[in-house]
Amino acid sequence: MITIHGTSWSGNCHKLKLLLSQLGRGHHWREVDLLGGDTRTPEFLAKNPNGKVPVLELGDGRVLVESNAILHWLADGSRFLPSDPWQRAQALSWMFFEQYSHEPYIAVARFICGWAPPDSPRRADLPRLRERGHQALAVMERHLGGQRWFTGQEYGIADIALFAYTAVAGDGGFDLSGYPALLDWLQRVRATPGFVEMPPASGQAREWIALSMQAGRPGHEDDGGRARH
Amino acid sequence: MITIHGTSWSGNCHKLKLLLSQLGRGHHWREVDLLGGDTRTPEFLAKNPNGKVPVLELGDGRVLVESNAILHWLADGSRFLPSDPWQRAQALSWMFFEQYSHEPYIAVARFICGWAPPDSPRRADLPRLRERGHQALAVMERHLGGQRWFTGQEYGIADIALFAYTAVAGDGGFDLSGYPALLDWLQRVRATPGFVEMPPASGQAREWIALSMQAGRPGHEDDGGRARH
Repeated sequence: MITIHGTSWSGNCHKLKLLLSQLGRGHHWREVDLLGGDTRTPEFLAKNPNGKVPVLELGDGRVLVESNAILHWLADGSRFLPSDPWQRAQALSWMFFEQYSHEPYIAVARFICGWAPPDSPRRADLPRLRERGHQALAVMERHLGGQRWFTGQEYGIADIALFAYTAVAGDGGFDLSGYPALLDWLQRVRATPGFVEMPPASGQAREWIALSMQAGRPGHEDDGGRARH
Repeated sequence: MITIHGTSWSGNCHKLKLLLSQLGRGHHWREVDLLGGDTRTPEFLAKNPNGKVPVLELGDGRVLVESNAILHWLADGSRFLPSDPWQRAQALSWMFFEQYSHEPYIAVARFICGWAPPDSPRRADLPRLRERGHQALAVMERHLGGQRWFTGQEYGIADIALFAYTAVAGDGGFDLSGYPALLDWLQRVRATPGFVEMPPASGQAREWIALSMQAGRPGHEDDGGRARH
């Protein structure tokens, strides 16, 4: 039995929960309290010296880190990763795109809105994060204008990797209404067999996200004022 | 015959030149003038809507983007990618680490030092980039304390991916003298058959890098003063 060390409100961790559900593969989930310092303990750093979730652990103690590398390993040989080498390469390409050009903007904006205190100086980063995040969403929209999925002809792990934070981009202040093909794709992903949604954020995160939305409205003078500079 | 659309002074592009040399595989190299706007032309954006180099193009016009996805596709079936699934997964894990936790700090610091004008406001980012870059180097040092390579038991594409910007980290102001295992590994990589070094940066880049080094010395009052805040 494999163990996933993960944080439920992290999209990178939810990717694994979604794929494991769709593979019908049992696993232990060990909840990691990211904000409580669980990734900074000697025990955790022995598993991942980079101090990040998720971590996959085998029964014999061997570990694999990096969400998209774990997705690729779990999906190998299944219908969630194409057998054609060129299509496999395209799936990996989208997964590297996700980690370099998408997650660092869209996931980080969500984190700042919901998990950094409302007076955090990090809110000053939001305009730049949103500009770069919208560039990534535009690249996805262009692809989805001509194709149903990111993993060749079928739904697969590139879709899972990109779905995770796109589905909750609104928490970071991203308005997706300008991306019709992307919105259709989100619904197609939600309709796949065995789909599981990420659990809702905690009450405090929802409250701070709501405050961020107010702050982002034109004319608002406190957080929004900082966020726009 | 494949074509690589790449920029010679980009580590992400040099990764491909290094692997192709070691595979003994012929290719066309089409130089892309990154700073001159070549990645913003409609022709280039048709190949990669994300506007980044490198791009691999097949003879029939199909393209593959993202340096590490290209490395993985080129190396598949060769000695540069392990055949064991778990070791392949570890290689991919290091390649995602490189793109998420290493390149955005170490490559970006180098770019700012050598290719952003000496009065660029981006220099204010350097202290944060160096702090995060050193965290990545420490993770590599810890691994290399017990293992010779990043791709299982043999040299391979995870080594190539991590070598590219680690080898030129000094250009971004990183002092590697505190990482003895990493320095040994850099020399082991340089000694592999078919190794090719990245071409030297242009005269202007070298001049700006030298200015950055002066600015970084304690007591210096202009760029260094800004960089430390």
